[in-house]
Amino acid sequence: MTNQQHILLVGAGGTLGTGVHRALTARGHKVTTVGRSSGDLRFDVSDPEQITALYEAASAYGPLNAVVGAAGDVPYAPLPELGPDAWRSAFAGKVLSQVELVRQGLDHVSERGSFTLITGVLAEQPIRTGAAASLANGAVESFVRAAAVEIAPRRVNAVSPTIFTESLDAYGAFFPGMESVPLERVAQAYVRSVEGPQTGQVYQVV
Amino acid sequence: MTNQQHILLVGAGGTLGTGVHRALTARGHKVTTVGRSSGDLRFDVSDPEQITALYEAASAYGPLNAVVGAAGDVPYAPLPELGPDAWRSAFAGKVLSQVELVRQGLDHVSERGSFTLITGVLAEQPIRTGAAASLANGAVESFVRAAAVEIAPRRVNAVSPTIFTESLDAYGAFFPGMESVPLERVAQAYVRSVEGPQTGQVYQVV
Repeated sequence: MTNQQHILLVGAGGTLGTGVHRALTARGHKVTTVGRSSGDLRFDVSDPEQITALYEAASAYGPLNAVVGAAGDVPYAPLPELGPDAWRSAFAGKVLSQVELVRQGLDHVSERGSFTLITGVLAEQPIRTGAAASLANGAVESFVRAAAVEIAPRRVNAVSPTIFTESLDAYGAFFPGMESVPLERVAQAYVRSVEGPQTGQVYQVV
Repeated sequence: MTNQQHILLVGAGGTLGTGVHRALTARGHKVTTVGRSSGDLRFDVSDPEQITALYEAASAYGPLNAVVGAAGDVPYAPLPELGPDAWRSAFAGKVLSQVELVRQGLDHVSERGSFTLITGVLAEQPIRTGAAASLANGAVESFVRAAAVEIAPRRVNAVSPTIFTESLDAYGAFFPGMESVPLERVAQAYVRSVEGPQTGQVYQVV
């Protein structure tokens, strides 16, 4: 039996969040869910001020051992159509949101607690219309390596999946010939980050 | 003798820009310089609207074959002190600026023209107080890989140097035990990107 942790799961209502929730619960952890429109706590983490309010509200659920992110909204469009507002939206929706979850979370997770962020295969392997997603993922991955050296003994890692098998019907056409991964494998990378000893890692699930 | 190119050099007044200018001129290229407060054209590329104006003004100097970036301002501070405005500043100063130089430049460089952006070793190798720089560099590198597949036959690469030997006095204390590189080697990576055949590359100069 693993030591039970109290985990704040951001983006719990999405496809990924649902799988991560299932895996963490199966490991015996207590999961407090966060979403924009569903979950125990309702906040939009693309607004740093709402992250402040989120951590205040979360304290009612008890001390936190881990924060895991499973949400990141970025726009998809051909490069010429991705103007300044689109790049800023990708930054706010997937980069600043997760960076501030870590930074502001330093005062709220336990001394050996952890953060697990979401990135994705597009950081390394581009698809058409995915330049903003690639940019956001690259930012998150380099942030994780940099933050790890500053927040120890707290830990921070990222999970970088390719397309989920469960999402092939919706998005498969954008990933021609790229193998999909079942959500359960992605969720296990979160378990590895939360329960394992490493920091500054990007766990590729491809 | 190489074919002469007309190159727009952004950030020409800085340490890096000076070295890149020297190397490109030595190769016989015509270089039009851009800076906030010096150069043939004076614009602040952290503002996307000024990039629009920059390209309009640059057209008076003749058709462009290449755009090279040698500027990127990011704040340095311990992670807990890097708030939302600092992350946004790093994004505007080194990511959005270079992304929009490429995107808006698509209408202004020749069909087989190129873009060369600046990133840096911190994308992979963190230093203390460098989390915003790491984040920005990671974003630029993944953007380069993604943009390359969409802008062909135009090309885009990045140059990723470690600390310059010429900057050791000012910044060496932040890079303990990390070897420096002479500016001239970094400048040659720009030459390689501008004159060579590759795209989507991150040229490490370490």
